[in-house]
Amino acid sequence: MSVIYQRVALIGLGLIASSMAHAMRRGGLVGEIVGTARSAETRDIAREVGFCDRIVDTAAEAAEGADLVVLAVPVGAMGAVAQEIGPVLKAGATVTDVGSVKRAVIDAVAPHLPAGVHFIPGHPLAGTEHSGPRSGFAELYDNRWCILVPNGAEEVATQRLCSLWQSMGANVEMMDADHHDLVLAVTSHAPHLIAYTMVGVADDLGRVTDTEVINYSAAGFRDFTRIAASDPTMWRDVFLTNKDATLEILGRFTEELFALQRAIRTGDGDHLFDYFTRTRAIRRGIIEAGQDTDAPDFGRSVKHD
Amino acid sequence: MSVIYQRVALIGLGLIASSMAHAMRRGGLVGEIVGTARSAETRDIAREVGFCDRIVDTAAEAAEGADLVVLAVPVGAMGAVAQEIGPVLKAGATVTDVGSVKRAVIDAVAPHLPAGVHFIPGHPLAGTEHSGPRSGFAELYDNRWCILVPNGAEEVATQRLCSLWQSMGANVEMMDADHHDLVLAVTSHAPHLIAYTMVGVADDLGRVTDTEVINYSAAGFRDFTRIAASDPTMWRDVFLTNKDATLEILGRFTEELFALQRAIRTGDGDHLFDYFTRTRAIRRGIIEAGQDTDAPDFGRSVKHD
Repeated sequence: MSVIYQRVALIGLGLIASSMAHAMRRGGLVGEIVGTARSAETRDIAREVGFCDRIVDTAAEAAEGADLVVLAVPVGAMGAVAQEIGPVLKAGATVTDVGSVKRAVIDAVAPHLPAGVHFIPGHPLAGTEHSGPRSGFAELYDNRWCILVPNGAEEVATQRLCSLWQSMGANVEMMDADHHDLVLAVTSHAPHLIAYTMVGVADDLGRVTDTEVINYSAAGFRDFTRIAASDPTMWRDVFLTNKDATLEILGRFTEELFALQRAIRTGDGDHLFDYFTRTRAIRRGIIEAGQDTDAPDFGRSVKHD
Repeated sequence: MSVIYQRVALIGLGLIASSMAHAMRRGGLVGEIVGTARSAETRDIAREVGFCDRIVDTAAEAAEGADLVVLAVPVGAMGAVAQEIGPVLKAGATVTDVGSVKRAVIDAVAPHLPAGVHFIPGHPLAGTEHSGPRSGFAELYDNRWCILVPNGAEEVATQRLCSLWQSMGANVEMMDADHHDLVLAVTSHAPHLIAYTMVGVADDLGRVTDTEVINYSAAGFRDFTRIAASDPTMWRDVFLTNKDATLEILGRFTEELFALQRAIRTGDGDHLFDYFTRTRAIRRGIIEAGQDTDAPDFGRSVKHD
């Protein structure tokens, strides 16, 4: 495979950026990877793990001379990074990001980028509950989706970024920023807030001791705790910057939850049964779309006879 | 290992009962397993898979002469089964169940059992999103918890049932019925209802097409769909029979969710960050308690470098 970008700058070195570095190296997709992170500790760990060719101290140093700059910092920090790197970006460079919200990133970043730089926001739909430079691995994007928001960028530049993501294993879809934010509010942002809430409620209940909640969490709650273990800074920024869509979906959620609570209270078993039967079909669709395994319990430490 | 019960009757042949059969055979724990199910199709499949020594047509036939009778039918069906088998139970036999709710099962079953029969309700905290006689496997209970509710039963009978569960791989805990129902409302029943609701909301949103919701579900939503794919009949009965505890927890949940929604609306990032940081600790506790793996994304088809 030939080199797609000569020099790539990763700004922010958490799970997403480090996994990109591993995946780019796996495929021999880029000439050189330069990385930076705000914290000296993160930079030291990244040097130790060694997934970049060079680690530098500032975003401006990393971005200077890069053909592709990847903003992999929390959404709330992107504006300041864009302001710092804007003056040093080389003409014809591409700037992209990996934030979970797209409209707010465009509003924060675009004003700081000079003419002649291609800005193509992106969002790889992959992750684990782990974060930081030690958590990355090359296979994170294999067969996952990456959404790109061309936002008027030149076709050639967009295709080049698209081909990088495909070569890292991902399927690429183009989407409008607002539509992205609504779809993600449904599939990711609202579910995360709900999981955070339920885990918080369990933590609050003094009558149910910690050990009990933990020991007896084999059922649904365990999956909620995995979701709720995600990076707090990242998620704070997601909710603050995708406010409208998230609140709209949560409004719908609350309305439906009240209807089911009423069915429980009044003993309306048919309503519950019909509702639960309908939701099974969505799961079937996800497995058929290849986005999850059909193995029971996600294949957690079980073997079949 | 010596035989713990000579003859075991499994009434209901879904995931839980068939996994018990596989686990009992793995350990050579019982002399003979007799199974029955209400539907002829289920009985035929169970014969084909072959996890019982004999499949009979009625609960009474299965229970007659059995040393241990396991009620593995939906909670709402247990009273009728108890009424059917009560007259044929042999003196000194033990009756247990595997229902997700304990107070309602005691109320429905106990009145039908003759004196001289030991009734020890139980609840193995294990499962997958699959159901039916083909879905069972011997390892389902390995290192999972099984809660027993002795409810005044004789110590010797309780210890014998306890030893069966331990030999099937489970850790056993004794608990009062009402406390069980509250703990499970927190760790399982409320999370399931919430997952069902969120999946239902996604399904309703005409503006977000099915394919999008399915393709882009890599994040939290995918875990919700797994939970929401569980057996509709079983869950209908859980909510109808653990009504008070579930509604109480859902009330707390809604209260907390409203507080977080307000924080999003007013842009209170500190509140969100603090809340999300606190929930991370619970996840850590679950991993330390050995009830889940630390592998990213549950070890779903990813390999580490």
